[in-house]
Amino acid sequence: MAVQTAASTTDSTVDLGPAAALSCRECGHRVPLGPVFACEECFGPLEIAYDFSSYDTEELRKRIEAGPANIWRYAPLLPVPADVAEKPNLNPGWTKLVKADHLARELGVTGGLYVKDDSGNPTHSFKDRVVAQALEAARAFGFTTLSCSSTGNLAGAVGAAAARAGFRSCVFIPHDLEQGKVVMAAIYGGDLVGIEGNYDDVNRFCSELIGDPAGEGWGFVNVNLRPYYAEGSKTLAYEICEQLGWRLPDQIVVPIASGSQLTKIDKGLQELIKLGLVEDRPYKIFGAQAEGCSPVSTAFKAGHDVVRPQKPNTIAKSLAIGNPADGPYVLDIARRTGGAVEDVTDEQVVDAIKLLARTEGIFAETAGGVTVGVTRKLIENGVLDPTKTTVVLNTGDGLKTLDAVAGTGLTATIRPNLDSFREAGLA
Amino acid sequence: MAVQTAASTTDSTVDLGPAAALSCRECGHRVPLGPVFACEECFGPLEIAYDFSSYDTEELRKRIEAGPANIWRYAPLLPVPADVAEKPNLNPGWTKLVKADHLARELGVTGGLYVKDDSGNPTHSFKDRVVAQALEAARAFGFTTLSCSSTGNLAGAVGAAAARAGFRSCVFIPHDLEQGKVVMAAIYGGDLVGIEGNYDDVNRFCSELIGDPAGEGWGFVNVNLRPYYAEGSKTLAYEICEQLGWRLPDQIVVPIASGSQLTKIDKGLQELIKLGLVEDRPYKIFGAQAEGCSPVSTAFKAGHDVVRPQKPNTIAKSLAIGNPADGPYVLDIARRTGGAVEDVTDEQVVDAIKLLARTEGIFAETAGGVTVGVTRKLIENGVLDPTKTTVVLNTGDGLKTLDAVAGTGLTATIRPNLDSFREAGLA
Repeated sequence: MAVQTAASTTDSTVDLGPAAALSCRECGHRVPLGPVFACEECFGPLEIAYDFSSYDTEELRKRIEAGPANIWRYAPLLPVPADVAEKPNLNPGWTKLVKADHLARELGVTGGLYVKDDSGNPTHSFKDRVVAQALEAARAFGFTTLSCSSTGNLAGAVGAAAARAGFRSCVFIPHDLEQGKVVMAAIYGGDLVGIEGNYDDVNRFCSELIGDPAGEGWGFVNVNLRPYYAEGSKTLAYEICEQLGWRLPDQIVVPIASGSQLTKIDKGLQELIKLGLVEDRPYKIFGAQAEGCSPVSTAFKAGHDVVRPQKPNTIAKSLAIGNPADGPYVLDIARRTGGAVEDVTDEQVVDAIKLLARTEGIFAETAGGVTVGVTRKLIENGVLDPTKTTVVLNTGDGLKTLDAVAGTGLTATIRPNLDSFREAGLA
Repeated sequence: MAVQTAASTTDSTVDLGPAAALSCRECGHRVPLGPVFACEECFGPLEIAYDFSSYDTEELRKRIEAGPANIWRYAPLLPVPADVAEKPNLNPGWTKLVKADHLARELGVTGGLYVKDDSGNPTHSFKDRVVAQALEAARAFGFTTLSCSSTGNLAGAVGAAAARAGFRSCVFIPHDLEQGKVVMAAIYGGDLVGIEGNYDDVNRFCSELIGDPAGEGWGFVNVNLRPYYAEGSKTLAYEICEQLGWRLPDQIVVPIASGSQLTKIDKGLQELIKLGLVEDRPYKIFGAQAEGCSPVSTAFKAGHDVVRPQKPNTIAKSLAIGNPADGPYVLDIARRTGGAVEDVTDEQVVDAIKLLARTEGIFAETAGGVTVGVTRKLIENGVLDPTKTTVVLNTGDGLKTLDAVAGTGLTATIRPNLDSFREAGLA
């Protein structure tokens, strides 16, 4: 298919596999594949429309199962060329779905509890999944620089993916970010630019840059490449179902930042049903927020359809988006599936991080503390059914948010002899 | 096979799969499987003797290929029961073997360069492989507490594995360890005991505890369970060969701490040859140390058979063992295979960490900087052949040694407008 894109001055053949067009989520208006993200008719968000019509269910299942142990096993369902696995990228995904029997016992879950542990990705967060899609779109559109604004996980994911693919990267962050985060983002050798201002200033500047000739050839993974980028979250749904033996979970607990991950997980589950890869049964999607940034949870509980922005104040910084773009869609999905949106305090987040580490040996980022904490709360409140198969997402790594659990320390200090050991009651 | 073990008061059946006995590496004396590590005849190190006699090569290959995407695909070659994959453990391994074409270009390697990236393990270091073996031995011997002395990666690996398996853990560390490392070890909820003294004092105390009734039922992964523990490193050799399409690499660069990893990688390669799983061709094993702790490299260059202890002083703390137990074996293997042992300065370690991150998007621990740095040096010195297939190990994650690259930072700081962006020369 030949389409004119903003990034190329001549017609080029854009091969993004089964991706057929961009379609407006609000009004359905379709445009050719290109580096655009908002509908020209109604300003609604554009998302990928696929052509899956040629797929035979059993052939597709076999093709997936014979595929690589990463997200590219699902290439037939993603906006990527068929030979994507041959190109240099970080090959994220196919992370562990951990049967969490000890945690289940603590929470009283009898129907099977699983943790989808995305800390196993190359840069240790789910962002590798979405950035990998944006990278393929960037390749297809002839971009040579990969960019983003970030305060954390995304900066590292973009820097690493660009390095591996041989792209230039230029990541924008607030200039006064903690030194540890700066190192994690800078190590990949791309440009790391500190902006004198807060995160809002950084974002405003990036939007300005996209509209300027200076930004030509630049793919901002979560702005002009957002429709492609967002699709990466579908792979979480695919992997969970395949790892459960091609079965839908009854309940799934997903963290909410922009809300995009939750909406794309729902999209992924719907696709699997339509393709016949899983049996069509009811499933419930639950959204999890930190109390200090809970605009969607607040709207859900109040029965509202719109989400009122909040000023974030929580240790769960990777979820601290006060005005989540996909908030209304999250409300729709939680209500349609019979799920809910709940929030927990920072103290409950820390408790949940420790609970997960103590029971299953998984050290989660604060976002994982949010989902585990919300799961516990939803069970206590009788909202989540403990007799059903439940999957909880951990989207990042505890090593990246050590500050949140800085109080954790030695259980005893002793002199190097047996008497001191016995005195401490450790024997 | 019924054996009497120190941990059980009655006879018990120890099922550790193909592991048949313990055999002294020095004198060949055999003893039944049990929690012992030194030969009663000559004080040499005990290692596992296997019975692989019943295996058919092609059946074994198929069984491995049909196995899980973790080290347990090699259960038939490890001291673990056949149903090990069903037991709660962290399922480490099957980490990525990354074809590193950008790095190859920078180093002038034309024969194929690969990075075996063990930062993808559950607690982000190769220690998960060895601890997983120790855990199964602990289960078999009826131990209920998993323990170790550690200053870093091992503490987290033991804490996490114990939590997942439902064991108590008790990890001993010097009391004045950096807070970040304490948090990483403490988060799993086991006992974390600070010893008033240095690492040598910690080790001495642990040896005392093993001989005392207070230590009964305790498995010290790298002391009384060491013969089992050490076997975990064989899986690196298995995975590399299988991921290369059941082929030996021509050259492999391995970091040296105690030297155990290198000797077990050699053992693993030899087993694959004997089992017919790979063609018997020459391979060379290279050992990598940091100059500030290079007792093996020093001995190799001097042509000595013995290793003179050094007082470590390097940023590569996970390799800082001044008196490496397996040093003489490493010398043997490097010489027998036509390899070498080399060392690099801390500055070269940092440069190599940045090189790997910039070219392949892999953020390595200091130990990975050591292997990449040594690879570069060996090529420059004409010791490593750039026309041959070469595998370089990265055994840990850069997030754990952020201090080593703390100087890495912003490439520019600008005001949030396009003029400032252009002035900075970023367009």
